[in-house]
Amino acid sequence: MLHFKRDIPHVPYSAMRYPEETMVERSKEFYRLLNQRRTVRLISPEPVPREVIDNVILTAGTAPSGAHTEPWTFVVVSDPEMKHQIRQIVEEEEEVNYRQRMGDKWVKDLAKLRTNWIKDYLDVAPYLILIFKQTYGILPNNKKKTHYYNEISVSIASGILLAALQNVGLVTVTSTPLNCGPQLRLLLKRPANEKLLMLLPVGYPAPDATVPELERKPLEDIVVHI
Amino acid sequence: MLHFKRDIPHVPYSAMRYPEETMVERSKEFYRLLNQRRTVRLISPEPVPREVIDNVILTAGTAPSGAHTEPWTFVVVSDPEMKHQIRQIVEEEEEVNYRQRMGDKWVKDLAKLRTNWIKDYLDVAPYLILIFKQTYGILPNNKKKTHYYNEISVSIASGILLAALQNVGLVTVTSTPLNCGPQLRLLLKRPANEKLLMLLPVGYPAPDATVPELERKPLEDIVVHI
Repeated sequence: MLHFKRDIPHVPYSAMRYPEETMVERSKEFYRLLNQRRTVRLISPEPVPREVIDNVILTAGTAPSGAHTEPWTFVVVSDPEMKHQIRQIVEEEEEVNYRQRMGDKWVKDLAKLRTNWIKDYLDVAPYLILIFKQTYGILPNNKKKTHYYNEISVSIASGILLAALQNVGLVTVTSTPLNCGPQLRLLLKRPANEKLLMLLPVGYPAPDATVPELERKPLEDIVVHI
Repeated sequence: MLHFKRDIPHVPYSAMRYPEETMVERSKEFYRLLNQRRTVRLISPEPVPREVIDNVILTAGTAPSGAHTEPWTFVVVSDPEMKHQIRQIVEEEEEVNYRQRMGDKWVKDLAKLRTNWIKDYLDVAPYLILIFKQTYGILPNNKKKTHYYNEISVSIASGILLAALQNVGLVTVTSTPLNCGPQLRLLLKRPANEKLLMLLPVGYPAPDATVPELERKPLEDIVVHI
């Protein structure tokens, strides 16, 4: 556990206090909202107000982080040429992943299965949000400052970002592009202390969007009461 | 990036579609709600309806995960004796952390600074939620199944859990107890494929709760538009 310096002044804190019935109702309503969230790979090219994107990122920035380091950078790409360059990097690496992972038979079938590593949504989605974790910080004396738990902190912020997107009716794919981080970091001119954690294409779902018919684990499979 | 087997049937997906003005308003409102969230170490012993806890955990379980493995287990502890045993394990390790990290001068001051590793909230909070990541799964033939990205997936679920707690007016401390994982896993009788990721005491804030007077980074420090 990490602790703040003891000389930061403290201020009183009170939270919104709801009657029990209201709490139960709010907890159900929020569950209903988020239970409708799905990973959607068919995204509409329709424009989305930039103010909404800024607000969901501000919301992600309310996440807790180890010693309040706030070790996240959200790079929002809407420029078509830049989106296309990102797509090229991701698809090239994905093709290598597929070929090396899948072996000979797979390679033979590559022509017809091409869609497997093709990421249309990287061109089509109005926004790509590339989430970088800052693996260390820079102190005023130019020395490195360790960012403990930076991956967990930025992943928590990403969870809050997903909730905020769902809350406004937008969809995404939480992708973690294998081996593309260094190239994307250079393309986007991010400093050496930042590492790509996730890439989210963001937009409205396409009218013909489909999702796999998957179910979620029931409560009894994920909770243990003691 | 990970992919599902191609033989899972797909179903149409549509999301709630809000007028732009409504989207902007919803994105602001959700930001206002979550921006009031703070890490609170003074938690009230007042009871909290268990239904609310179950609903926030169901909500966390809507998170995406690598290949839909849902690699999370939420252990909810309300039994006072068990809470106390957890506290003893955490405080013992924390004392070691403090003594080893801080060096001689610190050790001399230990008596008066004792509160630094004392975690009252582990006895006081009506619930402790211990979040475990399943580092692998067990296949029907008893072989291990890799759970890719299990730490990121469970951290994303934890972010959604924090949003759900804030939404009902509850507070917590996102703690990552150093070196206590194995002991807590044994105490709670969790299987070997589960590793403790986070420990959250949950309840209403105490009437005398305070928080450090910290600010969050402004939007321009966390976002880059391209």
